[in-house]
Amino acid sequence: MINDLKQRLARASQAAADAGVDALLVSPSTDLRYLCGYHAKPLERLTCLVVPSEGDPFLVAPYLEEPAAKASAVGALGMDIVTWQETDNPYSLVASKLGKVSHVALDDHMWAEKVFGFAQAMPGTKQRAAAELLQDLRIIKTATEIEALAHAGRAIDSVHSQMGQWLKAGRTEAEVARDIADAIVAAGHDRMDFVIVASGPNGASPHHDASERVINPGEPVVVDIGGTTPEGYASDCTRMYCVGEPPADFVEYYAVLQKAQAVATAAVKPGVSCEAIDAAAREVLDAAGFGQWFVHRVGHGIGLDTHEHPYMVSGNTRPLSEGMAFSIEPGVYLPGRHGARIEDIVVCGTDGAIVLNNETRELVVL
Amino acid sequence: MINDLKQRLARASQAAADAGVDALLVSPSTDLRYLCGYHAKPLERLTCLVVPSEGDPFLVAPYLEEPAAKASAVGALGMDIVTWQETDNPYSLVASKLGKVSHVALDDHMWAEKVFGFAQAMPGTKQRAAAELLQDLRIIKTATEIEALAHAGRAIDSVHSQMGQWLKAGRTEAEVARDIADAIVAAGHDRMDFVIVASGPNGASPHHDASERVINPGEPVVVDIGGTTPEGYASDCTRMYCVGEPPADFVEYYAVLQKAQAVATAAVKPGVSCEAIDAAAREVLDAAGFGQWFVHRVGHGIGLDTHEHPYMVSGNTRPLSEGMAFSIEPGVYLPGRHGARIEDIVVCGTDGAIVLNNETRELVVL
Repeated sequence: MINDLKQRLARASQAAADAGVDALLVSPSTDLRYLCGYHAKPLERLTCLVVPSEGDPFLVAPYLEEPAAKASAVGALGMDIVTWQETDNPYSLVASKLGKVSHVALDDHMWAEKVFGFAQAMPGTKQRAAAELLQDLRIIKTATEIEALAHAGRAIDSVHSQMGQWLKAGRTEAEVARDIADAIVAAGHDRMDFVIVASGPNGASPHHDASERVINPGEPVVVDIGGTTPEGYASDCTRMYCVGEPPADFVEYYAVLQKAQAVATAAVKPGVSCEAIDAAAREVLDAAGFGQWFVHRVGHGIGLDTHEHPYMVSGNTRPLSEGMAFSIEPGVYLPGRHGARIEDIVVCGTDGAIVLNNETRELVVL
Repeated sequence: MINDLKQRLARASQAAADAGVDALLVSPSTDLRYLCGYHAKPLERLTCLVVPSEGDPFLVAPYLEEPAAKASAVGALGMDIVTWQETDNPYSLVASKLGKVSHVALDDHMWAEKVFGFAQAMPGTKQRAAAELLQDLRIIKTATEIEALAHAGRAIDSVHSQMGQWLKAGRTEAEVARDIADAIVAAGHDRMDFVIVASGPNGASPHHDASERVINPGEPVVVDIGGTTPEGYASDCTRMYCVGEPPADFVEYYAVLQKAQAVATAAVKPGVSCEAIDAAAREVLDAAGFGQWFVHRVGHGIGLDTHEHPYMVSGNTRPLSEGMAFSIEPGVYLPGRHGARIEDIVVCGTDGAIVLNNETRELVVL
């Protein structure tokens, strides 16, 4: 792992140099975890990994966080930790350690207050988002990362396989969601990230949460769930359930949705564009007259973040490469009635998609 | 509640006008929840509340999030929701809806990629952090908010009161932490935010998490825990435990620490500066020779965020006002040996501190 981190840091430094950036500034985020294995919370006190285009990376951290930073891979990497006391200005500290630079790139999720803190401490230095400098490193998963995602996939699959224990008519979405949340952790995740239980008309809201609505017999229920494993990798999988017999109109579009999801998955291979994966699903739904109810892109990349690059969306002409990991999740949403989504995480392999979620994609009638 | 939100929005608009800012741009964050009751996750797709200094506030949101936004207080407020489709540029949409403006303020936690997205879509418009524009609204809690914090305080107190069930010699910190995490939710929090179980030498790291270390008899254990209630308010409370008899050196400084915490709490009243609260605790520890081991500020504000303004730290000359809520948490950390911290949440009342955590501050010998 330490060798992986060293390689990542070296590649990040090279990417900065290639882009004409003097240093990458990385605050607590999945970028920080990716580059130096330090899983720190974003807080008001500045912690910042500095990766210069020339010279050794170092970490600036509050004095009280030093033991935690040292206990992480930062210690094993032998990286310099520069600490600051409660009344110091940490932005000026980073600026003075870096010296005069003309361009810095900030991690995409850095808080605005920190962006402005650096702007003030480094007048005349141009800021930009790290964006593709780091995305291009993270977008191709190594074999170890793919196994970590597969592990997350198996864990979330095992939660779906037990759904009949919890999802029952007469219970509220929120009650079911609490049981699922516990099961996500029990299945080996470090934490639950989200639980969507969307019954009947709530299923028509793609990002519905879980409400006090009571689930009725004969209502389709969207269950979209995910967590993060101890290694830091995310799971994300949607399956469809119905307590008792589903409505006829639902059955009709659900069959089309299954086909759309399968066709998009079959379209995955190196060289095919991201937008072509979106189009593949969309064409099936369009042809059957349901295209207007498919209101979002077909997928998002996944790794240390649940949503990361690459996005499977119209306009993204980037070709797929071996090792990219992303969701394929077409949906149909009928306002006021119900909705459906089927979601798998897949990895682009040499010959096609490696599918990491393998519970049945049929409607599960409970 | 809707009237509270209307008032907050009006005050935010006025604060922007007073500061010469044409509009506040607020992405998913506790600021968003505070201003319009919409509890949205920060994600890659832009959701943004726009509060102009003149004219009505409106929300820009991805089309697929519209039902969720409408179901929140945003719907009841009758606020305009401007949606964007997957291939639109939401930053340009905000810019065109706003028209030509010279200054915008961005919420302190907005992601850098969004800061730069707005910079690109609004060339020539000066950006700054919202900072005190919103902090000054949030820093004084209403009676309803104080009751919400008190409710959170009682919930976390009830977890501390049960510690003897879980904290036992022979168990790992992580095992104990898992039980505490479950209890935090069972006690009425919506989610667990953090669980620090720091035994023996780990107690000397103020932000230690919970490790695989086995807790031994006679070791002091720092337990610092918190969660967020359904209303969105945070709890945060630290108590000290020991399985069996504590070491003599620990007993000595623990008595001083208790006094420091009590003295700082007694110093709270309107008009006293934030730094004076820090100094009050520090003087007690200094006088007893333990000052060098108290390596952090004495407290942080609390509300919708666990850490928010005001900070009780040297250099912060701001006077306390009635309704400010914050932690008082001096600590002593002896590297390689052990450490201790005692933390209560208090509210500044007319005549002094209203203390929201009320389990014993004595060392609890289990």
